[in-house]
Amino acid sequence: GYANIDNHREIRVGYPEVIYCAGKTVEQVRGIVEFMNTKNNNILATRATEEMFRAVKEVCGEAKYNSMAKIITIEKREIPKKDTYIAVVTAGTSDMPVAEEAAVTAEFLGNKVERIIDVGVAGIHRLFNKLEIIRGAKVIIVAAGMEGALASVVGGLVDKPIIAVPTSVGYGASFNGLAALLSMLNSCASGVSVVNIDNGFGAGYLASVINKL
Amino acid sequence: GYANIDNHREIRVGYPEVIYCAGKTVEQVRGIVEFMNTKNNNILATRATEEMFRAVKEVCGEAKYNSMAKIITIEKREIPKKDTYIAVVTAGTSDMPVAEEAAVTAEFLGNKVERIIDVGVAGIHRLFNKLEIIRGAKVIIVAAGMEGALASVVGGLVDKPIIAVPTSVGYGASFNGLAALLSMLNSCASGVSVVNIDNGFGAGYLASVINKL
Amino acid sequence: GYANIDNHREIRVGYPEVIYCAGKTVEQVRGIVEFMNTKNNNILATRATEEMFRAVKEVCGEAKYNSMAKIITIEKREIPKKDTYIAVVTAGTSDMPVAEEAAVTAEFLGNKVERIIDVGVAGIHRLFNKLEIIRGAKVIIVAAGMEGALASVVGGLVDKPIIAVPTSVGYGASFNGLAALLSMLNSCASGVSVVNIDNGFGAGYLASVINKL
Amino acid sequence: GYANIDNHREIRVGYPEVIYCAGKTVEQVRGIVEFMNTKNNNILATRATEEMFRAVKEVCGEAKYNSMAKIITIEKREIPKKDTYIAVVTAGTSDMPVAEEAAVTAEFLGNKVERIIDVGVAGIHRLFNKLEIIRGAKVIIVAAGMEGALASVVGGLVDKPIIAVPTSVGYGASFNGLAALLSMLNSCASGVSVVNIDNGFGAGYLASVINKL
Amino acid sequence: GYANIDNHREIRVGYPEVIYCAGKTVEQVRGIVEFMNTKNNNILATRATEEMFRAVKEVCGEAKYNSMAKIITIEKREIPKKDTYIAVVTAGTSDMPVAEEAAVTAEFLGNKVERIIDVGVAGIHRLFNKLEIIRGAKVIIVAAGMEGALASVVGGLVDKPIIAVPTSVGYGASFNGLAALLSMLNSCASGVSVVNIDNGFGAGYLASVINKL
Amino acid sequence: GYANIDNHREIRVGYPEVIYCAGKTVEQVRGIVEFMNTKNNNILATRATEEMFRAVKEVCGEAKYNSMAKIITIEKREIPKKDTYIAVVTAGTSDMPVAEEAAVTAEFLGNKVERIIDVGVAGIHRLFNKLEIIRGAKVIIVAAGMEGALASVVGGLVDKPIIAVPTSVGYGASFNGLAALLSMLNSCASGVSVVNIDNGFGAGYLASVINKL
Amino acid sequence: GYANIDNHREIRVGYPEVIYCAGKTVEQVRGIVEFMNTKNNNILATRATEEMFRAVKEVCGEAKYNSMAKIITIEKREIPKKDTYIAVVTAGTSDMPVAEEAAVTAEFLGNKVERIIDVGVAGIHRLFNKLEIIRGAKVIIVAAGMEGALASVVGGLVDKPIIAVPTSVGYGASFNGLAALLSMLNSCASGVSVVNIDNGFGAGYLASVINKL
Amino acid sequence: GYANIDNHREIRVGYPEVIYCAGKTVEQVRGIVEFMNTKNNNILATRATEEMFRAVKEVCGEAKYNSMAKIITIEKREIPKKDTYIAVVTAGTSDMPVAEEAAVTAEFLGNKVERIIDVGVAGIHRLFNKLEIIRGAKVIIVAAGMEGALASVVGGLVDKPIIAVPTSVGYGASFNGLAALLSMLNSCASGVSVVNIDNGFGAGYLASVINKL
Ligand SMILES: Nc1ncnc2c1ncn2[C@@H]1O[C@H](COP(=O)(O)O)[C@@H](O)[C@H]1O
Ligand SMILES: Nc1ncnc2c1ncn2[C@@H]1O[C@H](COP(=O)(O)O)[C@@H](O)[C@H]1O
Ligand SMILES: Nc1ncnc2c1ncn2[C@@H]1O[C@H](COP(=O)(O)O)[C@@H](O)[C@H]1O
Ligand SMILES: Nc1ncnc2c1ncn2[C@@H]1O[C@H](COP(=O)(O)O)[C@@H](O)[C@H]1O
Ligand SMILES: [Mg+2]
Ligand SMILES: [Mg+2]
Ligand SMILES: [Mg+2]
Ligand SMILES: [Mg+2]
Ligand SMILES: [Mg+2]
Ligand SMILES: [Mg+2]
Ligand SMILES: [Mg+2]
Ligand SMILES: [Mg+2]
Repeated sequence: GYANIDNHREIRVGYPEVIYCAGKTVEQVRGIVEFMNTKNNNILATRATEEMFRAVKEVCGEAKYNSMAKIITIEKREIPKKDTYIAVVTAGTSDMPVAEEAAVTAEFLGNKVERIIDVGVAGIHRLFNKLEIIRGAKVIIVAAGMEGALASVVGGLVDKPIIAVPTSVGYGASFNGLAALLSMLNSCASGVSVVNIDNGFGAGYLASVINKL
Repeated sequence: GYANIDNHREIRVGYPEVIYCAGKTVEQVRGIVEFMNTKNNNILATRATEEMFRAVKEVCGEAKYNSMAKIITIEKREIPKKDTYIAVVTAGTSDMPVAEEAAVTAEFLGNKVERIIDVGVAGIHRLFNKLEIIRGAKVIIVAAGMEGALASVVGGLVDKPIIAVPTSVGYGASFNGLAALLSMLNSCASGVSVVNIDNGFGAGYLASVINKL
Repeated sequence: GYANIDNHREIRVGYPEVIYCAGKTVEQVRGIVEFMNTKNNNILATRATEEMFRAVKEVCGEAKYNSMAKIITIEKREIPKKDTYIAVVTAGTSDMPVAEEAAVTAEFLGNKVERIIDVGVAGIHRLFNKLEIIRGAKVIIVAAGMEGALASVVGGLVDKPIIAVPTSVGYGASFNGLAALLSMLNSCASGVSVVNIDNGFGAGYLASVINKL
Repeated sequence: GYANIDNHREIRVGYPEVIYCAGKTVEQVRGIVEFMNTKNNNILATRATEEMFRAVKEVCGEAKYNSMAKIITIEKREIPKKDTYIAVVTAGTSDMPVAEEAAVTAEFLGNKVERIIDVGVAGIHRLFNKLEIIRGAKVIIVAAGMEGALASVVGGLVDKPIIAVPTSVGYGASFNGLAALLSMLNSCASGVSVVNIDNGFGAGYLASVINKL
Repeated sequence: GYANIDNHREIRVGYPEVIYCAGKTVEQVRGIVEFMNTKNNNILATRATEEMFRAVKEVCGEAKYNSMAKIITIEKREIPKKDTYIAVVTAGTSDMPVAEEAAVTAEFLGNKVERIIDVGVAGIHRLFNKLEIIRGAKVIIVAAGMEGALASVVGGLVDKPIIAVPTSVGYGASFNGLAALLSMLNSCASGVSVVNIDNGFGAGYLASVINKL
Repeated sequence: GYANIDNHREIRVGYPEVIYCAGKTVEQVRGIVEFMNTKNNNILATRATEEMFRAVKEVCGEAKYNSMAKIITIEKREIPKKDTYIAVVTAGTSDMPVAEEAAVTAEFLGNKVERIIDVGVAGIHRLFNKLEIIRGAKVIIVAAGMEGALASVVGGLVDKPIIAVPTSVGYGASFNGLAALLSMLNSCASGVSVVNIDNGFGAGYLASVINKL
Repeated sequence: GYANIDNHREIRVGYPEVIYCAGKTVEQVRGIVEFMNTKNNNILATRATEEMFRAVKEVCGEAKYNSMAKIITIEKREIPKKDTYIAVVTAGTSDMPVAEEAAVTAEFLGNKVERIIDVGVAGIHRLFNKLEIIRGAKVIIVAAGMEGALASVVGGLVDKPIIAVPTSVGYGASFNGLAALLSMLNSCASGVSVVNIDNGFGAGYLASVINKL
Repeated sequence: GYANIDNHREIRVGYPEVIYCAGKTVEQVRGIVEFMNTKNNNILATRATEEMFRAVKEVCGEAKYNSMAKIITIEKREIPKKDTYIAVVTAGTSDMPVAEEAAVTAEFLGNKVERIIDVGVAGIHRLFNKLEIIRGAKVIIVAAGMEGALASVVGGLVDKPIIAVPTSVGYGASFNGLAALLSMLNSCASGVSVVNIDNGFGAGYLASVINKL
């Protein structure tokens, strides 16, 4: 009674429906997985707690959990990987949970991912050291909190599409990610678009769509 | 003295620097065009007034002006068009200036564009009538004001990357495009990313980058 | 000393005063129920915790509790049901607590309710599958979080009044329901009005008023 | 090329598409009217300037203009009026343009309207003097700016649905109608729902839908 | 080291410094009371927790605690009461903690207080029943959350200064008292001024200053 | 038809209704004055333009206009002045229009007013030079824009009620008076309450009520 | 009557009072200059219009006007220049009016200024080309609109104090400089502090204070 | 894998990288310290919990913890102190944690610090009592919550650069420090710049940079 799974989604948009666990009870998450498990689909559940994972594990033994990304994955069919890769870049160490949500999502959807961590603009030479690997990607995800300047700086240095993910890292006038969000929306570099604050999943998903074009 | 043109940009990110005319004087715009005109580059100037166009015309006779898009273009070298196309979709008639800014930018950068106008969710069958042409695009731009719901609806129906452009069309609690912006950032459909309010140029530019991958 | 019950309300506006439990102590809720119980009225208490329910149960054995809706009901007189019905529609599974608050309120006030769950715009065919039952209602409640686009889409498809309830489902730039609220206020479809974020009670109450016209 | 009129709307939601003139050029408005005029529908155009009216008049001689409501109407078929009426209540004199937009819309759609003007809470006896006529309506529109308290006060006195329209009347911390909007969304009286700031059209339309149930 | 008590304040503004306990440690509160206790002043401490009270009690046996108002009082000298009184009016039961902070502060400062509870505009006859006692006050405090309309309604009915206290009672678009705050600042009734959200202390203090003029 | 004058107000709250001209047409203002002029009341009209004044002058020759305060006054009966006075204090020169609105209102209502101009905290000795005259008032109005600190500073130095009026003087992050408004609402000095941004009238009116207690 | 010049300021804070012309009438500006001119001080007037300049010129022939900075200067005594210099850096051409306000203020107060224009992060090599001259300054002003990232990037590259000035350059979600303001306040680079949006004067003044330490 | 320490920073900007512990796990903080400890640098870690300190202590015995400032320091090389000093001024007792973060940072970086606590504008004579010591500093930090007026008042009294730190002390319309932030950004006194809400570290760091010029 509590869910209306969009089984048709894979045909329509190319991927099965993803379970967004926040705001659902443990019972609901288990029930939805149990139902989807009867189809032969791979299953991805984001924003999942440890407790949800344990409940899912009971109904589906091959489920795996990435605790930094807070993602449950169930891979029933092996997913072939594309040759080109997605770069996931973070400004700081604290942006890693969001970046991992993006990276794990993208890998689950059949992409290779390169992680470039902690190269924020306060020490911009760290970015230049990694520029080659970033430029080699087909699409680039930049996760940054605080003032989110990294997205603009990367945007000025590459000729690939950039998906900027503002993170809620920061305090005070960061207003839980609003500062980074506004910053990224106003990027003076072209080729940058933005997803919701902390929306690693959305960034990883879109990067996958673009990487597979 | 008043500008420091980034001549190196074409090599670095694949396109020459674009002139953003808002906040510049007519003199400055003319001067910048005059300087860039000495190189053999195509020139794009956005947010240009009629008066700016007339000033530019004096120093560069082949300049053209699209008054709905408020864009000046100078094409010195013919730009070969890609085979795949970009769809530019609007919710209402009033979103057309933003959509045109996107479309003209994308065309200038060497892309074919299909325009699908006035298919907002208040009469959703209008969208379904155009679904085939939208689905045929390699990348889709959706421009919508008011509640910006069209981006989510399109997002649920296609397997292509969607660039959502909130427009400032609306009044009252639209807060000059904020409602559409927030709406698009929170899209329940995956594959949607967002650029600044009324940023047709940014959407057209990014769509071009993706279309050429 | 702590409350001034509006006993006159039933005569004036057609329904007895409803107890809003948030911000009241368990003692206050019990006391108010105890007092109202001396009249021969049905009693409705919203935003009630389990603990409040247990306290109320002590003074009034026939009290019932709906834990998803967080509502206590005491029905002393049977309530005749109208023939026409109210549709309660949700975008996702996570919107159900708000939708239940609306549905339980409407039922308590003497209305038949049809629940249509998890038909958000990310998979819009799910909505079309249920359109007949939605169109058959006399008044429609739409509860949606994130970008709240469902209200506009339904609004464009029916000729009945729509009460939109933004929910706080979402994160980041949903700003606890603000995105959905603004979205619904700016609906491009006509016939849509809005109540407070998460205000299932208000939606159910108003729907009842309209259903009984 | 610039509009995609929803001719099907009357069948689907019971009324033809309404022209929202803000953000359209005079040429566009004239063109849309010219096109719609070829059908045998009545035509309503809101947010129309005097200049737009003159242009419309050229292509359609029977067009009429209400300058306070800023509405153009073209009535090709007489509209039968319902017996029950809609009350349009304003807090002050300055709220009248919004109230007129609501009233003229409702009348155009086939409803009788009673106007009760300038009965704001600063002199609440003025409201009590008119209570009988307000209570006699089938549905009530309350337009108020500043703190918008009138909606709550009326809400506590009647057993009919109330459509609250915040107006942008006020200054400073009214933030162009935000104060009234928030006030109305948080009404402690039940039975009140809200439309966008200054959205007289939306209120009149919804009132008509309810009045005709 | 951690405080710099303003002993001179009584001479300058007529009252001793008040201890604002929020953001202070239990140790700091006890220490400040201990120090002030060496002077022969009455002591008032607001926003005090039960734990702070127990600590204060150790160093000053005659301390009293009002748990609804969260106020500690130490009365070393009896305070003569003025003949005229202050009315403290609340819209709902949930506004009582704020109202009590105001009332206890005013009493501590030497004023008689009349409490009129739960007379919000959803049932406005409750207010009219108490109008005489409200009109008899020299100054009136109105505490209300949600839409805060009560302040305007009272303001239109009396010829006394009104101190409006928005409370954080509410949810969703009340934004923790912002709706009531904006509402009260935009009151269409004259004679109303506003203090901070939940600032019962400030209202009680100012009412005392006015009552003693 | 367009106004519903509250003739009863003088009896109820002690003063006749005041005409708020913003958002009214010149015709409406003239008409309201013409109607009120048939009673033997003094008339006050705020936010009046020069053009409105000329229209009023035609129907009422003794009307006077204060162009800085933007106030029209018509004094038919002499107003006796209270002995005690109201101090109107401004931070800067630019705050004078708001301060004059307050002062002229208070004088019209029968109060003596002392103006103390341009004593903002950037040069705080200017305030100390005037402290005696400020302290001698029965009630004090402080008008300040930018950061509005003057209200707190005065609040710490006097034992009289202070009515703080934030002004929209400033730019950037003053957000049209929001900075001063928030500042004044959070005053660390007690005895300060706040009226709307630029609401000189409200401050003058309330000061008069208090001065006459 | 309308100003209370702080003649003592030079002794107290080291500089004479500066005239802030916005919100003053032409008459007031002329009058204040006329008065200050009787002292032997240099005079600085910011936010001055051409019309104000012409009025000032009448009473003080040696007045000069910088139309980009909108500053009037009157130098009666030559101002000795410090050896060390202040760098004024802008992200784009459109930030120049703010940067000039800063530069002209600093020069007036006795400082050498180096201007580095149009070196925003979209083309970061432009910044590196100028790094030596920026690093040679004693204090650095960075003026940037849009996302304001330049302040952070410079902050990570130098060991000097940086005064960041957000400008209102941008549109949409720049919210008139709010995006740049929040960005700069959340700079991940240390050594950066912020002044008000478009406050070139404040930046130039503070830079002068620091340069003279 | 989770951090990319900027070892080059000391050479580039004059200080080693500082560890910002918020948003990092205990493991990450310990690991980063362990790595940095292999270099011969002094180490500063801000926003550290007690638990983090205990973990750090295990890998580095000489670590010290200031629990009010929430700072871990490891001093491997003695830091010579400058002769000139920094003044750290607070408005109230509750602002002390932020002030201590500033003071401890500045001391760690080789500066003498004078603390002047609880001299807010509600009792301004407390400030005047300390004016000499404040004026003697080379640079002044002012930490204040609520309305943050202290920064402006100090700014009008000294000729030194002032770094204003808004604190989140307050409630209601302080909006977690927003009121103080806006207030300080709009200071009518010149020479004041602002860092993020509660950013004691940033203030202390910048003060050190200036003090060492
Ligand atoms: N004053 C108004 N306010 C809000 N929506 C309106 C108004 N007038 C018309 N509309 C809606 O706007 C739609 C037309 O939008 P568009 O396609 O941009 O012309 C109509 O079908 C109405 O539903
Ligand atoms: N982390 C996430 N952030 C945003 N959207 C998500 C996330 N994970 C899943 N989704 C979307 O949420 C939808 C399910 O929402 P619901 O019906 O409430 O379960 C999925 O189809 C996805 O498109
Ligand atoms: N509940 C309260 N709300 C606002 N201000 C208060 C409150 N209680 C005390 N105060 C003020 O806070 C001042 C003390 O602040 P502090 O120096 O931080 O202890 C007192 O002198 C009062 O003016
Ligand atoms: N452009 C500016 N931005 C901010 N403050 C300014 C500016 N120019 C001058 N000021 C300040 O404004 C004060 C004068 O304000 P007023 O009393 O209103 O004339 C001066 O003493 C300066 O401190
Ligand atoms: Mg790092
Ligand atoms: Mg349309
Ligand atoms: Mg779902
Ligand atoms: Mg009126
Ligand atoms: Mg109640
Ligand atoms: Mg001044
Ligand atoms: Mg440039
Ligand atoms: Mg204190």
